[in-house]
Amino acid sequence: MSSQAPERPPVGGEECCPPLTRGELDLDDAERWARAFKALGDPTRLRLLSLIAAAPGGEACICDLTGPVGLAQPTVSHHMKQLVESGLAEREQRGRWAFYRVVEDALTSLGDVIRP
Amino acid sequence: MSSQAPERPPVGGEECCPPLTRGELDLDDAERWARAFKALGDPTRLRLLSLIAAAPGGEACICDLTGPVGLAQPTVSHHMKQLVESGLAEREQRGRWAFYRVVEDALTSLGDVIRP
Repeated sequence: MSSQAPERPPVGGEECCPPLTRGELDLDDAERWARAFKALGDPTRLRLLSLIAAAPGGEACICDLTGPVGLAQPTVSHHMKQLVESGLAEREQRGRWAFYRVVEDALTSLGDVIRP
Repeated sequence: MSSQAPERPPVGGEECCPPLTRGELDLDDAERWARAFKALGDPTRLRLLSLIAAAPGGEACICDLTGPVGLAQPTVSHHMKQLVESGLAEREQRGRWAFYRVVEDALTSLGDVIRP
């Protein structure tokens, strides 16, 4: 999965997401959503998302994320890569630094999946 | 974590869950929620939850879950144990069989966490 570049994010950007508890999930949906939930299944990644969302303008430079989570930049980059690949964050390179935003639509879609 | 018996489920049953995107998460919340998201981060576990929720009365015997997911009972039991430990499902033993229900409040709380 690490070098995959999907054409569209695994979650968000589509019209619907029937709740998990409304009927039997098909395998494709289950795999797509599981990837996104797995990306959220780590305390550091949850904290990174909350830090980015709380940053001015909803955008954070990786240089401002390493300190609060107490991890080196390659480790933070690796976590952010998983969030970007699962469609939960967006990355923009500006000169030397990468900047990240939370993809709120993807979080909303994922929230809709699990709300009964 | 496998033999832990927490006094209350890691998610649900409390009064609040501030959204992930409303401010910086503290470490305790991040760890608690990450455990629950990690439990959802597997396609088989998502399908098990949807099968249980779609079963008559919202309850399913493990004997009725193995067929649809195409896995042996010990494997399904292991997945269900992770869902129960993370507070997303409840288990009741009746005679020979274990019966499971989805904990809708826990799913709602978790959905609230990630909805912007």
